[in-house]
Amino acid sequence: MRKSDGRERLLTAGLKVLHSRGFNASGVQDITDAAGVPKGSFYNHFESKEAFGAEVVARFWEEGARRALPLLSDETRLPLDRLKAYFAAKAAANLASRFELGCMMGNFAAELSGQSRLVRDRLAALFAGWTRALATVVREAQEAGEVPRDLPAETLAGFIIDAWEGAVLRGKVERDPAAFERFERIVFSKILA
Amino acid sequence: MRKSDGRERLLTAGLKVLHSRGFNASGVQDITDAAGVPKGSFYNHFESKEAFGAEVVARFWEEGARRALPLLSDETRLPLDRLKAYFAAKAAANLASRFELGCMMGNFAAELSGQSRLVRDRLAALFAGWTRALATVVREAQEAGEVPRDLPAETLAGFIIDAWEGAVLRGKVERDPAAFERFERIVFSKILA
Repeated sequence: MRKSDGRERLLTAGLKVLHSRGFNASGVQDITDAAGVPKGSFYNHFESKEAFGAEVVARFWEEGARRALPLLSDETRLPLDRLKAYFAAKAAANLASRFELGCMMGNFAAELSGQSRLVRDRLAALFAGWTRALATVVREAQEAGEVPRDLPAETLAGFIIDAWEGAVLRGKVERDPAAFERFERIVFSKILA
Repeated sequence: MRKSDGRERLLTAGLKVLHSRGFNASGVQDITDAAGVPKGSFYNHFESKEAFGAEVVARFWEEGARRALPLLSDETRLPLDRLKAYFAAKAAANLASRFELGCMMGNFAAELSGQSRLVRDRLAALFAGWTRALATVVREAQEAGEVPRDLPAETLAGFIIDAWEGAVLRGKVERDPAAFERFERIVFSKILA
């Protein structure tokens, strides 16, 4: 096995382990077992479990972005329609996992912000990038006259992401779609309206 | 030391430990050390660390409710003013802890929903009670003509709580009040308006 293969296997398997069990409930051995690599090889690839966690949550974001961000830039649709499609796809992904996993960014924000400056800084950068991506489309919706211009697009986008993270958390607790339904209803009838 | 004293010391000290470090990063010994009781005595008072976690998060809610809920029932103020005062007080509490701790209910929702059915059920009940308490005041605001009646008070209250939890998470990551400021702005200019 080449060194890069082991690293890749650790990231792929570790993402699943840390997403489902959380960071502190997972040992390095859980990650190496899931990846099918010797426990001792972990530190050939990553300086620490903390550094691994920061890489894994960035990969979580990249994978989600690869799937969902194209919906935001689909210029065959009006901006507001794109935003609806984007959150509908994300809600469907949460339903598909029976609301159990939640968002790894939110999970790590809750569990690790106080424990790891490295993870917290990575999360801050990821949330900022997500907010910019969403704000671009909110701004287009404002320019198209679909959304009022009384609040800055960045403010609206930041709030909508926070409300989304809260809905995902509530979904984890209640294991039903109610939080996602009211998110969709209120975002598109009150906030972007 | 009477048995009830040890139990009370464990709950008081353990709430602080679990709030700042999270559940899985804290051992029973961290809790007994903080409480100043012998490690072995923990299981005289609680069946498991999990059962302790469920009691602690219920106590977190009760303590917060004792401080903040009176603001919601202050009948010298109009309902919308009470809601503003309530969230302003909660934002001030987050500022006072430099946004580090977050909400234990949100933290446990993220960390433990998949790990503990006991904690998840407790959280579901606490979130439902919180939503009912908030919805009562939203309904009063609707009856007073301060808030439109186009959406049910329970839907609005549920969404506002989710958005709050998301803002608290973002505050933990960014360690600044931006998420609280946009929460206040959007809730009171778009959602309850």
